[in-house]
Amino acid sequence: MLTQKQIDEVRKKALTYFEKAGIVLTKEEKNNIEVVDFGLGDLEHTGLELVIYVNIDRCCAKELVLFPHQTCPEHRHPPIEDKSGKEETFRCRWGKVYLYVEGEPTENPQAIPPKGREHTYTVWHEIVLDPGEQYTLKPNTLHWFQSGPKGAIVSEFSTKSRDETDIFTDPDIQRITKIQG
Amino acid sequence: MLTQKQIDEVRKKALTYFEKAGIVLTKEEKNNIEVVDFGLGDLEHTGLELVIYVNIDRCCAKELVLFPHQTCPEHRHPPIEDKSGKEETFRCRWGKVYLYVEGEPTENPQAIPPKGREHTYTVWHEIVLDPGEQYTLKPNTLHWFQSGPKGAIVSEFSTKSRDETDIFTDPDIQRITKIQG
Repeated sequence: MLTQKQIDEVRKKALTYFEKAGIVLTKEEKNNIEVVDFGLGDLEHTGLELVIYVNIDRCCAKELVLFPHQTCPEHRHPPIEDKSGKEETFRCRWGKVYLYVEGEPTENPQAIPPKGREHTYTVWHEIVLDPGEQYTLKPNTLHWFQSGPKGAIVSEFSTKSRDETDIFTDPDIQRITKIQG
Repeated sequence: MLTQKQIDEVRKKALTYFEKAGIVLTKEEKNNIEVVDFGLGDLEHTGLELVIYVNIDRCCAKELVLFPHQTCPEHRHPPIEDKSGKEETFRCRWGKVYLYVEGEPTENPQAIPPKGREHTYTVWHEIVLDPGEQYTLKPNTLHWFQSGPKGAIVSEFSTKSRDETDIFTDPDIQRITKIQG
């Protein structure tokens, strides 16, 4: 669980990354950067900071910040009602991202899962994204990603996002951040 | 109709805008910037330069460049087959954009349609987008847009794009660029 003070500090830090990448946000967006610790209480290693630009009936765009070596843990977007899972493209805007998906495992992958949670990472086909590079996931594909030593900013272009329905491999994860009252 | 030489020059010019905005493209994207003159042969006033990052079954993301006072002419995205029209959000990344949609006309709007084509512009509700600001169009809404004096870069997040089916108010417009052999 995060305190409001922690969230405010993380938002400030995330802003410095948007600034470095030359990405302009409105005041409202700056004040509402979503801080996600996945309920593990170890945001430095497992976490994500994001701005949702738009998430309407049929499409969604987000800007994600990853601090250095921060990991968005392994998950997939299952089919909902009559729709196949979320169709999702990651485009690296700044920094470097290591993305892992189902497929032939990569020898000596460059990212290391957060300590103590290694057993919850099962897919190891590595895709390296430098600025301007992107990758489109097939719906319902298991995936996780980690930034390089500078951190990263990643644009996500997708169909409607329903984060609360994501399925994580790690049974201890709670996708929706709880704030300590 | 544009010549290959013209297209190459316009691509180079568009690249300088991407650089100013700090947007990184791959070499392949740089070499394939789409240059659209809408068949009017007056690209300086009516035209668009764009990179399509992704356009798959259910979603699409583009980066648009507008040179100073360049106009993307009035059009709408009609329903296709069983799908309602394209769901589209414009987010200004750099420069300034004047967007016009159906609605209460704005007194003294700030953009002027290209000379000789004024009669093909019918919607005048003005939305001004500075960097970080965005607007989501309802599907099948008539709209057009023009950049301010510096030009602009605009991210477009949408459902699948089918540019060839767009309906333009100006009967002389051809959406797909023809290159002189």
